[in-house]
Amino acid sequence: MTQPGRLISFEGIDGSGKSTQARRLAEHLRDTGRDPLLTREPGGSPGAEDIRRLLVEGDPDRWSPETELLLFTAARRDHLERLIQPALAEGRDVITDRFADSTRVYQGATRGDLRALVDQLHSLMIGREPDLTFVIDMPPELALTRGLARASGEDRFEEFGLPFQTALRAGFLDLARANPDRCVVIDGNRPEAEVAADVIAHLTVAA
Amino acid sequence: MTQPGRLISFEGIDGSGKSTQARRLAEHLRDTGRDPLLTREPGGSPGAEDIRRLLVEGDPDRWSPETELLLFTAARRDHLERLIQPALAEGRDVITDRFADSTRVYQGATRGDLRALVDQLHSLMIGREPDLTFVIDMPPELALTRGLARASGEDRFEEFGLPFQTALRAGFLDLARANPDRCVVIDGNRPEAEVAADVIAHLTVAA
Ligand SMILES: Nc1ncnc2c1ncn2[C@@H]1O[C@H](COP(=O)(O)OP(=O)(O)O)[C@@H](O)[C@H]1O
Ligand SMILES: Nc1ncnc2c1ncn2[C@@H]1O[C@H](COP(=O)(O)OP(=O)(O)O)[C@@H](O)[C@H]1O
Ligand SMILES: [Mg+2]
Ligand SMILES: [Mg+2]
Repeated sequence: MTQPGRLISFEGIDGSGKSTQARRLAEHLRDTGRDPLLTREPGGSPGAEDIRRLLVEGDPDRWSPETELLLFTAARRDHLERLIQPALAEGRDVITDRFADSTRVYQGATRGDLRALVDQLHSLMIGREPDLTFVIDMPPELALTRGLARASGEDRFEEFGLPFQTALRAGFLDLARANPDRCVVIDGNRPEAEVAADVIAHLTVAA
Repeated sequence: MTQPGRLISFEGIDGSGKSTQARRLAEHLRDTGRDPLLTREPGGSPGAEDIRRLLVEGDPDRWSPETELLLFTAARRDHLERLIQPALAEGRDVITDRFADSTRVYQGATRGDLRALVDQLHSLMIGREPDLTFVIDMPPELALTRGLARASGEDRFEEFGLPFQTALRAGFLDLARANPDRCVVIDGNRPEAEVAADVIAHLTVAA
């Protein structure tokens, strides 16, 4: 029987370097002869990408927090069963740029009263946690400067300012503290290659 | 303070006459000087209609039953909070062509093992039941003949045949038996006006 692959997520605030580091880790695994799957949320599978479009386009108040939560969960369920689980079953490592922790932290920062609901919905409809989560941490004022260099039409979420990113950063760190079995906090405020080396070192220790 | 309106749903198999009777009831209430809101599921509000398009278009296996359930619930949540609840709060009666019972019965007929999940997701994210539910009952072989007269591009659900509609009919009747406080079974195999008179008579008794 094939040994199942590992599910590895990258989390952190906008501009911290999640996408960069997820790509670099996938390259590293490819260099070592593995065949990782690199994916992202929201989206990742064709159905989830269709749902993603509903989430990222339109007015900021297009959806209530509860409806938004249901749509994120629908997209994650599709992503998990159509893309992630089949790849893991084939023995491939799956690297995902954001997963359920992003929902927990964003919801916690915007509507703290929904945190219990987020967790109930997660255990009812998703269940699975990553085997390993890298929380890329850095001061939001520096990350935001990086982010300004980017252009994107998908700005329903990124228009929130510094106080919001500061709350998110604290949320990710709390979550890492509460889940030390799978979460590793990585200092993202260093040159790319240095951050990547740190990620790889932890992967080797953990797996 | 305004007395809240009543939430009234119509349920039953395809072609049983739900849409016809929902419209007739709305006309009757208008004739008696009330200002009912006539709506339908899936859809009903702009956001829910966008989600409806994801549900009714595409391959039959575009979504897994679990993802489909999450999308239906997201659409219902939007419909409820953006359209139904504000109208009820203004004292308007709301007549909806299908509501949560359709999800219960369709899911029960296709994936009986998901019925518990359907109920848990409903109490977590929707909660509200109609004040009054009319289950329009009739033999599916007659209802299907009616249905054949209709053309529709939204055929992801209606392509199931007689055995499936028979299972749905039984599901709606079981549900009515289990919820006698709010459900009334109406014989739909009669001329339209006769069915409508029966609906109005029950409404007068119940409300
Ligand atoms: N360690 C780093 N040092 C400086 N710039 C970086 C570093 N990592 C990423 N960047 C740049 O910062 C921006 C945001 O990085 P990205 O990986 O897209 O972050 P995220 O996915 O977390 O929003 C990009 O322009 C990227 O090239
Ligand atoms: N009592 C009735 N007798 C005969 N035909 C009917 C009756 N009620 C509705 N119809 C017709 O049957 C078809 C299905 O009715 P409809 O109200 O759309 O059913 P549903 O919404 O339950 O699918 C329509 O063409 C409608 O005009
Ligand atoms: Mg990114
Ligand atoms: Mg109809």
